[in-house]
Order: sequence, then C-alpha cells, then structure tokens
Amino acid sequence: MPAFEPQDPEYEKRVRESFGRQQVMQAIGASLTRILPGTVEIVLPFRGDLTQQHGFLHAGIISTIADSACGYAAYSLMPADAAVLTIEYKVNFLSPAQGDRMVARARVTKPGRTVSVCTCDVFAVTNGRERIIATMLGTLMTVREREGLRG
Amino acid sequence: MPAFEPQDPEYEKRVRESFGRQQVMQAIGASLTRILPGTVEIVLPFRGDLTQQHGFLHAGIISTIADSACGYAAYSLMPADAAVLTIEYKVNFLSPAQGDRMVARARVTKPGRTVSVCTCDVFAVTNGRERIIATMLGTLMTVREREGLRG
Amino acid sequence: MPAFEPQDPEYEKRVRESFGRQQVMQAIGASLTRILPGTVEIVLPFRGDLTQQHGFLHAGIISTIADSACGYAAYSLMPADAAVLTIEYKVNFLSPAQGDRMVARARVTKPGRTVSVCTCDVFAVTNGRERIIATMLGTLMTVREREGLRG
Amino acid sequence: MPAFEPQDPEYEKRVRESFGRQQVMQAIGASLTRILPGTVEIVLPFRGDLTQQHGFLHAGIISTIADSACGYAAYSLMPADAAVLTIEYKVNFLSPAQGDRMVARARVTKPGRTVSVCTCDVFAVTNGRERIIATMLGTLMTVREREGLRG
Repeated sequence: MPAFEPQDPEYEKRVRESFGRQQVMQAIGASLTRILPGTVEIVLPFRGDLTQQHGFLHAGIISTIADSACGYAAYSLMPADAAVLTIEYKVNFLSPAQGDRMVARARVTKPGRTVSVCTCDVFAVTNGRERIIATMLGTLMTVREREGLRG
Repeated sequence: MPAFEPQDPEYEKRVRESFGRQQVMQAIGASLTRILPGTVEIVLPFRGDLTQQHGFLHAGIISTIADSACGYAAYSLMPADAAVLTIEYKVNFLSPAQGDRMVARARVTKPGRTVSVCTCDVFAVTNGRERIIATMLGTLMTVREREGLRG
Repeated sequence: MPAFEPQDPEYEKRVRESFGRQQVMQAIGASLTRILPGTVEIVLPFRGDLTQQHGFLHAGIISTIADSACGYAAYSLMPADAAVLTIEYKVNFLSPAQGDRMVARARVTKPGRTVSVCTCDVFAVTNGRERIIATMLGTLMTVREREGLRG
Repeated sequence: MPAFEPQDPEYEKRVRESFGRQQVMQAIGASLTRILPGTVEIVLPFRGDLTQQHGFLHAGIISTIADSACGYAAYSLMPADAAVLTIEYKVNFLSPAQGDRMVARARVTKPGRTVSVCTCDVFAVTNGRERIIATMLGTLMTVREREGLRG
C-alpha cells in the first residue's frame, strides 16, 4: 500500500469539520477515530435501535459508516477547495453485524483528479476481538465548480 | 416485467411482521407503503438529522431503505419458513437526496431457490413531483437452516 | 423510461465508427444491432471457444458485450468531441450463458456532463425464445480533454 | 491476510484441470501462473485483437481474467466434489490497460459454505514495472447438487 502525499496540509482539520457537519453521524452515534492521508477510521458502538429484523445492525447503517470512511479517505487527498460526492459503492456483507462496536477502516486505492476509488473493511469488535463483517469498494468524485458545496 | 406467484399466500403478513421488527425503520421514520409479490415500496420523509455535510440525506440512509425494499421484495417470494439475508448490493447515487420524502421501489429481477437478485430505484418527491436519485442492484439469500432466524 | 435528446445529431455514425475500432468485437464475433439515443443493442452468437469450464459463455465475455453496450448507450448522448471511458460496473449472472446467441440491451439511466449511469440486460436466445442471463449496472465517464482519445 | 487451509489436498490439480477446460483462456492467451490456498494469479500478454476503441485491452477482457482468478481462488478452498459459479462481481477500472502483459491476482476475503467473497487486483506490467489498472470485488457460489457440473 503506497503512502499518499496530501495536497492540502490542513487535510485533517478539513475532514474533521466536514464530518462534524454530517448530522447523521451524531444521530447514529458514530465518531471519527483516525485520519491519515488517504486513510480514515470511523467507529460505531452497537445500538439496538439501528437493527434489522434479526437484531443485527442493518446493512444500510454499516454502509453509512463505510461510505463516510471512504468519502473522507478520498477527501483527505483532495485540494483545499474541493467537495466530495459519492458516485457509487458496492458492499459485501460477510457476517452478522453484532458486537460491542463496529470499526470501518477505509483507504484510497487510487486517487484521481476527478474520480477516486476507495475500499473499506468493516469489523465487529467483541471483547477486544475483531471479526470482518463487510467490505466496500466505492467511487468518489471531486467536485469543484458547484457553488454552495463545502467539503 | 413478469408477474410472480408467491409460494406463501400469507406473504404480505410475513413481510409486514418482519419489517415491524426492523427497529432502524422506526428510528429513521420509514414506512412500508406497498407490498405485491416481488415488489415492495418504502417511504422515508426527509429529516435534517439524517443528512451528510451538504444537507442532503446521507447515501447510507438511502441505502438503508433501498436494501430493505430489495430484501422484502425477495422475501415476498420465499417460502413461509425462510429468512432473508443481504449478500451484497451496489448503489449508484444519481442526484442529491433532497425533497419532501424519498420513495424506494424495489422489484425482483430473478428469484432463486438460494440466491435472488433485485433492483431498487429511489425517487425524491418534492411538491408531488418525482425525480430519481439512486438505483440499487443487489443479491439476497434465502436462509432456511439457521435456527433462531425468523424472517 | 424517458426518451433522450442527443446532443450530436450524428450520434449513430459516431457510435458505429467507434464500435468498428473495438477490435475485440471482431475477435469474439459481436455486432451492433440497434442504436437509438441512450439505447444500444449488441448481439453475440454462441461460440465454443469463448466458454468457461462448464461449456457456458464465460462471465467476462458476457461483461464484454454488456460493457460495450452500456458505453455506447452513454456515448450516444455525449457531445461530438467527447470520448467515453468505463469507470466501473457490476454484473449479476442470473442463468447459464448458453443458447444460439446472446443479446445485450443497454440504456442510459441518467446521463451526466461528466458521469453517466447505464444498465444492461443480457438475454440468451434459443430457438427464438429469450431468457435473461445477466444484468449490469455501470458508470461511464465523458472525457474531453485527453488528446489522442477519439470516441 | 489470514492463511487458508484447503479442504481438498488436491486443490492445485483440481484448479489446473478446471482452468484447462476454460476454452476462453486459450482463446485470449491467458495462463495460470500461481495457485495457493485461497490465492490465484493469471497472466495475459497484451494482444491488439482484444482492444477497445483507444487501443487498450477491453474492460471485459480484464474482467475475464479477474473473474477466473477470483473463481479459482474460491474454488481452491472448496470441497473436492464442488463446482464454482460466479454470482456477481464489480470492477473498477483505474488506468488504461496497456503494457506488455496483465497480471490478475485474486484472493479470498471470506470463504463460505455456500457463498465466498474474493477480491482481485489487476496490474499492467511494462518493462518489469507494475501499475494497478483494475480492482474487482466478487461473490462466488459453491454448487454441489447439480449433476453434470464439474469444477
């Protein structure tokens, strides 16, 4: 895995500010636990009110933290005046999303001027042990020209 | 689009009961508005606390209703004693998720004994006008043997 | 399904010329059988030398015609000086690819200035009867600035 | 990345025999260059007759080798009497597929009794230097019951 050089030295601040504006992260109780150039980690403690019919966290909630992790991994490498949008993603669900908390770890596979590609693995942590529960492959877009879009 | 014959005549009741156990649907305020064999519609009114950094609904929340719509479209064609699990899905985000409410309409492309494939289009409704904002292609699994898994 | 207005009235000629330069289409024996704004059909007669281990056409060969169909569906709506590149696609394989010939029918879901989204259904035709065997959801990019890229 | 224990000690022979029956591999000139439990590598020398309109290898041809690499990575961990089928895959195309040869390296992310998930990175090799050009995330199925399906 190559190391990436951020275009904007203030990348961490920019990512934290944008994450802070994602109201859904507060709603579900997710927090940003690690930011490096091209790498982002988000943690979500288990909550019974976010579950599907079998008592596991809903696939869409897993996608929510994985998408934000991918988006901010890509965003960390973008220029200071850019915004990031998700073009698409695909997620495979590998095991039931149950445990004390979920950890989504994303990294950039290929940064691009317009299009970046990221992957994210999501792990369930139970009593300190990690087990992979999902993996995402997604495509993010650098948006510059739209007024009113920050971050 | 072919019409599907449900294996279980009680399919609608079975879908409604399972949906009722998806606690995340209550948490985000989504409701089940249409069930036919192989077709399910879920509606989500816009809520500011579910948004991303630009004030649009988060891609993961759109995925949440689209995944449940796909899952229940597939589940409506499954035998009475089956449970449904999401193997994977891919979603393209076509336009910002803003509007009065979001409507996810899923239908089964190919039902299968073990694996079913579904698509879901998600529309934003503003003043009664619909605009497509996302499209999902997903793979669902019929699970029979696992004890303790209902629906 | 909305009708699309092509930006370039010569779209059909442009698609045919670009398809003619795809040497792999000749190598596998595929032909372009229908072009409308935002819609393209490609036909591939069955050939034993393109099969996988069970004697069905290989999934990658099905992807080859589906990707070209999606690409040209998107390309038919692009301006005259644009080139098209595939960003990514996802394909579900629904039934074994066997029959007299395969027909890939693609249409644009959402055209965009930079990014377009298309779907393609692939059918196996046996004694004049069609059966769906695969479905693709893909993302295409309009490229303008790269010199040397035609079509 | 965990090491996997094959269920069938003859896995390598089984993979080689099945690959040998994939006629499309001979047609495009691909060869199997590495087999380990859960890991497979396939090499494809560049050929002008497999190109798209810009002279790069067609995305579908890249998918062909990546799909076989994923399929055989999963197959290497399956029981001796199983066959493997591709349920679906998604591929991102990261750079033009040009170079002396393409190398597809697949590994199993999660083996399963019925469903396995694999990833494959594809590299273009030019004068001995590798550059990533595509990445696949796919879902494979273990098939036991269908008569007549070998490998």
